[in-house]
Amino acid sequence: MPEQVSGAGRESFGSRLGAAMAARGPLCVGIDPHPSLLAGWGLNDDVEGLRAFSLTVLDAVASLAAAVKPQVALYERHGSAGMAVLEEVLAIARDEAVLTIADAKRGDIGSTMAAYADAWLRDGSPLAADSVTLSPYLGFESLRPALDLAAETGRGVFVLALTSNPEGASVQHVGGADSVARRIALAAGGENRRYPGGLGSVGLVVGATVGSALADLDMDLAAMRGPILAPGLGAQGATPAHLRATFGSAYPQVLGTSSREILSAGPQPRAVREAAQRTLDGLRGE
Amino acid sequence: MPEQVSGAGRESFGSRLGAAMAARGPLCVGIDPHPSLLAGWGLNDDVEGLRAFSLTVLDAVASLAAAVKPQVALYERHGSAGMAVLEEVLAIARDEAVLTIADAKRGDIGSTMAAYADAWLRDGSPLAADSVTLSPYLGFESLRPALDLAAETGRGVFVLALTSNPEGASVQHVGGADSVARRIALAAGGENRRYPGGLGSVGLVVGATVGSALADLDMDLAAMRGPILAPGLGAQGATPAHLRATFGSAYPQVLGTSSREILSAGPQPRAVREAAQRTLDGLRGE
Repeated sequence: MPEQVSGAGRESFGSRLGAAMAARGPLCVGIDPHPSLLAGWGLNDDVEGLRAFSLTVLDAVASLAAAVKPQVALYERHGSAGMAVLEEVLAIARDEAVLTIADAKRGDIGSTMAAYADAWLRDGSPLAADSVTLSPYLGFESLRPALDLAAETGRGVFVLALTSNPEGASVQHVGGADSVARRIALAAGGENRRYPGGLGSVGLVVGATVGSALADLDMDLAAMRGPILAPGLGAQGATPAHLRATFGSAYPQVLGTSSREILSAGPQPRAVREAAQRTLDGLRGE
Repeated sequence: MPEQVSGAGRESFGSRLGAAMAARGPLCVGIDPHPSLLAGWGLNDDVEGLRAFSLTVLDAVASLAAAVKPQVALYERHGSAGMAVLEEVLAIARDEAVLTIADAKRGDIGSTMAAYADAWLRDGSPLAADSVTLSPYLGFESLRPALDLAAETGRGVFVLALTSNPEGASVQHVGGADSVARRIALAAGGENRRYPGGLGSVGLVVGATVGSALADLDMDLAAMRGPILAPGLGAQGATPAHLRATFGSAYPQVLGTSSREILSAGPQPRAVREAAQRTLDGLRGE
């Protein structure tokens, strides 16, 4: 059982995210510099294009979104120079006081997992974000070094649980009444006992378009108490109404995540911001 | 069903790896610049230490090992500057004609997975390796962009299947006779039908110390036909005899992977090379 202490009097990630969601509304803007979006903005698919795109999006939405979620794969695709742009994005987000979710989906064991935790969750790391997404194929408990370092540094994690891509079921739904996805959600809930009151710092990634799978798999996300990163809003087909229907009593934990619909409104910063505002209004039911 | 064609007359990764294993023996040396190993070598835990360690190991074993496996987490831990060192390691390995396995355990869906494939498997990418490790929590088929790009560019993948860490069972063993790990192995075997004859280019990661789990889960790795990356040799407790007992008729596909036992013999290059040679002799039964 983890201790009920988070690090050295720091405010926990769950608490910070909860406050941001209360103040701004539950929107996370994905910063996804896909080649097709760069082309749509008239930018080259190179490090300069990557940087111009990323900084424009960040500047347009930083004062409006509860969090931004840079997609690490799209920086890694440009090698170390791309990762340097990501470092810059994360540093500017810190200065602009918008929370960051590095969408890295990392996962390993032992001292290697500790190295990933160091990379994304340790003070002073060039890639330090407020939170990182993790993949639990090696078991939820294999993520322990990241869970513990996050608690220590006031950071958070979002663990992949249930996704809506058709092939996801071949792993996540396996196990009948004791499915892989349900086990992950239960483990996250157990972990959130170290964060009494409010939102825990251990979140889950659950697709916005999973439909009835949450009920089918008997997953109680309200009891899990962590934030729910729900990609799929907008261009991928989910509306705020879908989110409310899918997540039910856990809706207050949901951070609706939209990327393409907002990003394709660019390259004008005002257009990006307005698209984000429209999505946010939908999420707040306004 | 994938086409039975790999890219443009290029030799496949499986074929190249099979030839290297036949010529040199089935040893993969892990390049794991853990902070504790850097300290043991008298190096600082910084980018210069990372670089000195990595290039020394590579130079010591490049003409002896069938493959080297840099652990990406340990480069990422140093941010973009660490990733630049990894680019250098991969470039030198290409020049020295030793195959590379980027141990990244990446996994995502759709265009994001395509971006990871671009990063590690596309010609001209700064991080291009001969192969990359992947994590299938989102389903084996979610890895499709990497499977297809690898076939096109004569590269390979190793998909996480079955590991020996105690918490791995909570995902991998779930599902009874149709377990998650068994599904991954079957899917890899299906995929290797696009590589007729010899070793396929779609490998699996299976821990050297999984013991009876392969039999318990009814996993037929010989039928899978891809290479088996088996970490755990040496400091983690497995001997070559364990590997033979664990993998049985699939032993010819096994690439025994040792890191710490070889690396801790440093910092003298000759000592690293001799430790690698001893491990290799054990694997070859000499």
